[in-house]
Amino acid sequence: MTEKSSLTKAELVTLLSTFIDPNLIIADQETQRPYECDGLSMYCQMPLLVVLPETLDQVQGLLKICHQYGIPVVPRGAGTGLCAGAMPDKNGVVLSLAKFNQILDIDPVARMARVEPGVRNLAISEAAAEFGLYYGPDPSSQIACTLGGNVAENSGGVHCLKYGLTVHNILKIKMFTVEGKLISLGCEGLDSAGMDLVALITGSEGLLGVVTEITVKLLPIPEKAQVVMAAFDSVQKAGDAVGQIIAQGIIPAGLEMMDGHAIRAAEDFAKAGYPLDAEALLLCEVDGTKEEVHEHIEQVELAFQQLGAFEVRVSQNEAERALLWKGRKSAFPAVGRISPDYYCMDGTIPRGQLAYVLTEMQKLSEYYGLRVANVFHAGDGNLHPLILFDANIPGEFEKTEEFGARILELCVKVGGCITGEHGVGVEKIRQMHSQFSEQELAQFHAIKDAFDSAGTLNPGKGVPLLRHCQEYRTLEKPAPSGGNH
Amino acid sequence: MTEKSSLTKAELVTLLSTFIDPNLIIADQETQRPYECDGLSMYCQMPLLVVLPETLDQVQGLLKICHQYGIPVVPRGAGTGLCAGAMPDKNGVVLSLAKFNQILDIDPVARMARVEPGVRNLAISEAAAEFGLYYGPDPSSQIACTLGGNVAENSGGVHCLKYGLTVHNILKIKMFTVEGKLISLGCEGLDSAGMDLVALITGSEGLLGVVTEITVKLLPIPEKAQVVMAAFDSVQKAGDAVGQIIAQGIIPAGLEMMDGHAIRAAEDFAKAGYPLDAEALLLCEVDGTKEEVHEHIEQVELAFQQLGAFEVRVSQNEAERALLWKGRKSAFPAVGRISPDYYCMDGTIPRGQLAYVLTEMQKLSEYYGLRVANVFHAGDGNLHPLILFDANIPGEFEKTEEFGARILELCVKVGGCITGEHGVGVEKIRQMHSQFSEQELAQFHAIKDAFDSAGTLNPGKGVPLLRHCQEYRTLEKPAPSGGNH
Repeated sequence: MTEKSSLTKAELVTLLSTFIDPNLIIADQETQRPYECDGLSMYCQMPLLVVLPETLDQVQGLLKICHQYGIPVVPRGAGTGLCAGAMPDKNGVVLSLAKFNQILDIDPVARMARVEPGVRNLAISEAAAEFGLYYGPDPSSQIACTLGGNVAENSGGVHCLKYGLTVHNILKIKMFTVEGKLISLGCEGLDSAGMDLVALITGSEGLLGVVTEITVKLLPIPEKAQVVMAAFDSVQKAGDAVGQIIAQGIIPAGLEMMDGHAIRAAEDFAKAGYPLDAEALLLCEVDGTKEEVHEHIEQVELAFQQLGAFEVRVSQNEAERALLWKGRKSAFPAVGRISPDYYCMDGTIPRGQLAYVLTEMQKLSEYYGLRVANVFHAGDGNLHPLILFDANIPGEFEKTEEFGARILELCVKVGGCITGEHGVGVEKIRQMHSQFSEQELAQFHAIKDAFDSAGTLNPGKGVPLLRHCQEYRTLEKPAPSGGNH
Repeated sequence: MTEKSSLTKAELVTLLSTFIDPNLIIADQETQRPYECDGLSMYCQMPLLVVLPETLDQVQGLLKICHQYGIPVVPRGAGTGLCAGAMPDKNGVVLSLAKFNQILDIDPVARMARVEPGVRNLAISEAAAEFGLYYGPDPSSQIACTLGGNVAENSGGVHCLKYGLTVHNILKIKMFTVEGKLISLGCEGLDSAGMDLVALITGSEGLLGVVTEITVKLLPIPEKAQVVMAAFDSVQKAGDAVGQIIAQGIIPAGLEMMDGHAIRAAEDFAKAGYPLDAEALLLCEVDGTKEEVHEHIEQVELAFQQLGAFEVRVSQNEAERALLWKGRKSAFPAVGRISPDYYCMDGTIPRGQLAYVLTEMQKLSEYYGLRVANVFHAGDGNLHPLILFDANIPGEFEKTEEFGARILELCVKVGGCITGEHGVGVEKIRQMHSQFSEQELAQFHAIKDAFDSAGTLNPGKGVPLLRHCQEYRTLEKPAPSGGNH
C-alpha cells in the first residue's frame, strides 16, 4: 500500500484530463463532499479525487495510471452501502461507475440480462417486466443501489431466503484487473470451467478488480403472492416458530420478524394494523402459482396457530398485503422517530439459534443500558438489530459500537457470521478476527495478493492486516452476558 | 512442481509407517492398479504410493511430509470422476479419503448435514429421509460417488436445473492447506464474511487443498413428482421447445433430451415405450405440492403440443414415471451396445443455442465420419454428446478426441463453456485455452500460487501451463463446419 503517491494532485488531474472530460474529474472539496462516505455516515474520509469516467477506455487508462504511480482506487456504485466499503482513501481516487448505467441486453429465452455496473437494481426488473421476468435480489435500497455495488457486497433482501443472494443470481462478470487488463469470468451456462471466480469476486468489496459488466439471471414473476402475519407474546416463541416453519418444508418467499420496540414504532408510523401488545411479529410471504400459494398459506396459518401465535391474519387482497408490508418496510425510519440515533447491525446465525440469540441480545441491552429494536430476515437467520442511542451523550456512541461488536461476536459464537448482506468494509474489519483464524486470514491475504499485490484497490477494507490480529485479541474483554453457548 | 522427490519410495513408506497402519499404504503395483485412473479410463498413470489414512492427524502428517519433500499429492474420492481429475502423478501419493465415510450430524431444523468427504452422495439422502429431507445434487453416479469428489468437481445431475450444482448446496468446508494447516471456510448462515472461498474451493479439483468436512444444505422431499414425455420429428423443434418451456416461467425439476440414436438404443434396451420414429425426445419432470404439479404438468403438456411434439405422454403413476426415466437412465449403457466404444463429452451452452449447436454437431459428425448420440440435461444447456467409435480401428481414437475438442470449442463459441459437471482434469486442460485468455489463465495461476506455490497439489490438472498457450493456439485448425456464429 502506498502512503503517498509520486504524483501531486495537480499532476494527476492534468494526466487524467488528457483523456477524461475535466468536468468529470472532481478535485475541489465542496463538490467531493457527497462522496466522503457511503450509507454508513459515521465513517467518512475526503478523497484525493473523484472521477466519473464515461467509457471503458477511460476506466482502463485511469487504472493504468493509478497502478503505475501506486495511487489507491476505491470503486463506487450508488454509495448506498452500509459498511463503509466505499469510504474514500485520503490519498486515492474514488472511481465512480455511475455513468455506466445501460442495460445492454435482455434475453427472455435464456432468462438473462447483461447490464453495466451503474444500472439500478430495480431498473432491471422494470425493464424485464414486459417479458414476465424480474431480477431476484431486492435489497431495501433497490430503488437506488446499483448492480456493481450489489456484486461488491453480495447484497440480499427480503426474498433471498427463496431466491438467494446476488452470488446465486449472476452468471458472468467482466472486470478490469488492477493493472487495467480486461478479463471475463463465468459463462452463460449453469456451470463454468476452472475456478469459480465469479463467486470469488462477488462480495469481495472492490478489493480484487473493477467490475464493468454483469450478466444476471432473471426469474419468472410469480402468479400470486400472499402474506401471513402472526403475533406472539415472546420473541422466543416467534424465534422457534421460524425454525419450525422451515423444518416443515415450506420455503417462504420472505419470512421477516420484528420485536416489540419495532412493532410499536412501525405501527405508530404506518398504521399497518399490527397488534400493539405483541412482543414479536412474523410476516411470512408465500409466492408461486395460485394453487401452490393457497396450499402453503393454509399450512403456514395452521402452523403459526399451533406454535403459539395469539393472532394470525392472512392478506385477502393486494391492498391488505401491501399494508402488512408497509409496516415492515417503514420500520427503520419509524424506529428513527423513537430515538435520536440508531445503529443498524447486520449478522447471520443458524435459524435454530434465533430464540437464544435474541435472549442474549436482551441481556446485552440491559448491560449497556441501550435499547435494541429487532427488524430482520428471520427465515435466513439474517439479523438487523437497531441499537438506539444518542450521539450527543458523551461516550454513548463508543458504548454503541462496543454493543454492536458484542452482537457480532455472539453471531460467530453460535456458528453464524459477522455479516448477512451489508459486508465488512471498514465497519466490521476488526470482527474479522473473531470470525477467522490467522491462517484463514492469511489465505484471504494470499488471494488479495494474487489480484493486487501492491494493495492499491480499496485499501483498508474487507480483510484486516495480520499484524492487527494479536492487538485485537489482547483487547478482547470477557463477554458481559456470561455464559458460553 | 517437483519432478523427483528427495526421498526414495522406500524411505517415504518407512516415514509414513511411523503413524499410518502399513496395511493402508499401498506400494505394490498390483494392489495400486484400481487407482491408476478415475472413470475416464483412457487416461491412466500408476502412482508412487496410494495411502488411505484413517484420522485427520494422519492426513495432516502425510501432507506435511509431502510438502517438506516436494512430493505431489493427488486427493481421491470414489474415483467415479469423468475428466481424469483424480489420475495419479507418477512421482506422487494418491491420498484416498475413502476411510472418512461418516455422517457427523443431521440438523433437521437448520436443514443441514455435516459429513466427511468419503460419504457417498446417496447416503446423505438415505440418512435424511426420516426427517423428510434429502440432498439435492444427484450425479448419475450418486450411488457410488462421494461428497469430497462432488465438491472437487462441482457435480450436478438431472435435478440441478431446479436445485443447483454442488456449489449451490453447500455452506461450509473444512480443509487442510498443502502445508497441513486446517482452515474452515463459509458458515452455517446464508452469507459468509470475507471472500467466498467455499465457492472457490468447489470445483477446484483438489488443486487448492484437501477437504475434510462438508456442511451441506438439505431440501424437503417434494410431495409429488410427475413426468411428461414429448416426441419430436427434429432435434431443432425439441431444442426450441426447451427454450420456450423455460421462457414460460416453468422451472422443471429436470428437463432431459435424447436424440434419435439415443432413443432407439435406449428403447431397445429398456422398453420404456419411447416412439421409435422420434428424432428427439424430451422428458420434463415437475415436482412440488400436488396442486403445483397438477397445474405445471397441464401447462407443460399444452406447451409441448403447441411447440410441435407429435406425441405427448404424462406419467399417471409412479410405475409409469419410473419406466419413462428408466430409458433415460440406461441410455449410456444402451448406446454402449450399439458401438464398440463411446466417448462421453460434457459442455454447456446457453439454452437458446440448443438447436443451432445440435445442427452444427451433426455437420461435425458427418465431417469426421463418426456417429454421435445425444443424451443430456437440456434444461440447463448441459450437453453430453456420446461419440461412437471403435478403438481397434487405427486412428479412430485420435479422430474421436479431435471431434470432442471441436464440440467443446463450439460450446465456447456460442457463449457456453467446456464443462457442465464433469470438470476439466487432464481431459480438457487444452480446451481451457479456448475458454480463457492468457490474462484469465494467469489469474487462475495466481490463485493456485496463493494456495500452493510449489504446485504439489494435484499437478497437471485443471489449469494449463501458460507456456502451452501459444503452442496450443498454433495447433488450432480452422473449424470444419465453417461458419462462425
